[in-house]
Amino acid sequence: MGGGGGGGAKEEMAVVESREWYLSSYVPEGVPTSDHIKLRTVSLSVDVDSIPDQHVAIQLLWISIDPYIRSRMTGHDDGLYFPQFNLNQVITEFGIGRVIRSKDSNFTEGDIVINPFSPVAEYCVMPSAFLRKADPAAGIALPDYLGSLGVPGFTAWVGIGVLGNPKPGSNVFISAAAGGVGIFAGQLAKLKGCRVIGSTGSDEKVKLLKEEFGYDDAFNYNKETDFDAALSKYFPNGIDIYFENVGGKMLEAVLNHVNKGARIPLCGMISQYNKIWTEREGVRNLLNMVGKEVRMEGFLVGSYLDRFGDFMKEMEGYIKEGKINSKYKIYNGIESFLESFASIFSSSNIGKVVIQVRP
Amino acid sequence: MGGGGGGGAKEEMAVVESREWYLSSYVPEGVPTSDHIKLRTVSLSVDVDSIPDQHVAIQLLWISIDPYIRSRMTGHDDGLYFPQFNLNQVITEFGIGRVIRSKDSNFTEGDIVINPFSPVAEYCVMPSAFLRKADPAAGIALPDYLGSLGVPGFTAWVGIGVLGNPKPGSNVFISAAAGGVGIFAGQLAKLKGCRVIGSTGSDEKVKLLKEEFGYDDAFNYNKETDFDAALSKYFPNGIDIYFENVGGKMLEAVLNHVNKGARIPLCGMISQYNKIWTEREGVRNLLNMVGKEVRMEGFLVGSYLDRFGDFMKEMEGYIKEGKINSKYKIYNGIESFLESFASIFSSSNIGKVVIQVRP
Repeated sequence: MGGGGGGGAKEEMAVVESREWYLSSYVPEGVPTSDHIKLRTVSLSVDVDSIPDQHVAIQLLWISIDPYIRSRMTGHDDGLYFPQFNLNQVITEFGIGRVIRSKDSNFTEGDIVINPFSPVAEYCVMPSAFLRKADPAAGIALPDYLGSLGVPGFTAWVGIGVLGNPKPGSNVFISAAAGGVGIFAGQLAKLKGCRVIGSTGSDEKVKLLKEEFGYDDAFNYNKETDFDAALSKYFPNGIDIYFENVGGKMLEAVLNHVNKGARIPLCGMISQYNKIWTEREGVRNLLNMVGKEVRMEGFLVGSYLDRFGDFMKEMEGYIKEGKINSKYKIYNGIESFLESFASIFSSSNIGKVVIQVRP
Repeated sequence: MGGGGGGGAKEEMAVVESREWYLSSYVPEGVPTSDHIKLRTVSLSVDVDSIPDQHVAIQLLWISIDPYIRSRMTGHDDGLYFPQFNLNQVITEFGIGRVIRSKDSNFTEGDIVINPFSPVAEYCVMPSAFLRKADPAAGIALPDYLGSLGVPGFTAWVGIGVLGNPKPGSNVFISAAAGGVGIFAGQLAKLKGCRVIGSTGSDEKVKLLKEEFGYDDAFNYNKETDFDAALSKYFPNGIDIYFENVGGKMLEAVLNHVNKGARIPLCGMISQYNKIWTEREGVRNLLNMVGKEVRMEGFLVGSYLDRFGDFMKEMEGYIKEGKINSKYKIYNGIESFLESFASIFSSSNIGKVVIQVRP
């Protein structure tokens, strides 16, 4: 494991060995495997002379695992969130780390930093411009910066609060409800006084949604042979907001149950990511959007950064009042990346998936 | 043809005979024919004693023929614009008529009235609350009240002006561009400084769009085997606004060419009306809406009536300045309804279809 550990005196750490994951070939369809994503060890100079000004060296502690990075591995830019990863370059994700060298006077060794462009690795040297310091006095658990206060929480807040326009009593449906974003979307809608129903992939998760995340009800889509019938049962008064995480047949069923003026914020379509687009499930009843005057809107949180302060204030308030529950599925060690990533596409996944790179 | 003619003295017209079209059976799919829609003659009392207070008797002059009424004939309410027509009751449309008897002091015999709930008939007795008088001094041709100043013009104005958010230089694509709504949508977008391309169903209409309606370019979709390739050619810089009139494969192709933040006002989906929904063409690439943050929004002009005054002011201004061209396909006589309605679904249709009930 090389010389990278936390033990030695600072002056010994001129070079660290860092394991990192890189994309060796694009994956047009299917769940990526070790055929496509590989682990390698690189040596990284972290002595103060080799680090450029306005850069810091970071030891990664936590890495977020998010579905959207699947779309950066297809090799073709068909309506993607972000550009494709380059072949043979390290995969990047949201991460939290500890500063081990600093060439920026705003950062000190030992600072905990939140890094939206972290490599999926053990160490990195980064421009400090992209980093935000975590405040140890705030009493926030570190994974929460990747969850309720991170991209998933912000995504849920934009979808529900900004695009969903929730009112007390609105009928809200959330798919992939027990996923990293879904658990926050449901809780935020409940805090606005909505009636919230979730769909998820196992009975265990149905129970969790109702008992831990305050959903009014939830159902296991694997047990429903007819989504239309399920939605008739759970939404006798129709759907006002559909927080869309899955796409395909579920979206089609929802469009048969929308109320006048319904809003459909499109967060993602996880059922469709692993298929090339011509083989994706077509939605045949978009015409319903005309008569019901439905608004469907794709969004990326990067376009709402001017609202990040509002979000942090509201969400930190909820967290301090104990009104937001979180759930993490923690994988240990950088070597668990492939397994943790594949777990997102399995219906057994519960909560926000993270890797604890180092305890 | 009974006693209904315009010739006799008023006191003779106690009863008129009126031919009217009614729905005899619902039409789940396909273009309606004489098996479904039939003509009959009814006798209507139009003497002053038989007309209720706040009602008027009207002789119809012009009737608008609009695609949306197809959706009122399917027999099932799947995301429809308006309720289904009742079987054996007269079909209704937008119409213009002349008051022949009035029991409302605001209306006088001879007034020309615009009637959003006109029967497809020769005569009717209507509550006057729904009627608007045409001002003969305004110098507006009567069919324009069904076209540029009627539902088609207002629909185009809401879709382009309110939902489309056009900017000078925006790349605008309009399908069914030579149809009743499309011709106005394109002209309004041009008046906002956009680059406007239309798709339509014949070479003759392509020529018309470019020569009479100011489109920058247009193509015949019947000659394009690959919509994707066509859009690559006509939109090298992508699409900012897609005014959607057809649905299905064209919408799917558009979603492969949308720019960041594109707007897709959904006016209608004429390619899909004559199919039951499970047989409609599925749109497989809605995932593109996420990465490109596309907003797709169905609309009915009835929800924008608070803007009707703004619309009238703007459109009348354009008409007086000679900046809006109109094109009508005029069918003669109430007996032409079935033929005129079928023409809407044929690719040879050009401009706004109307019936001149009486010269």
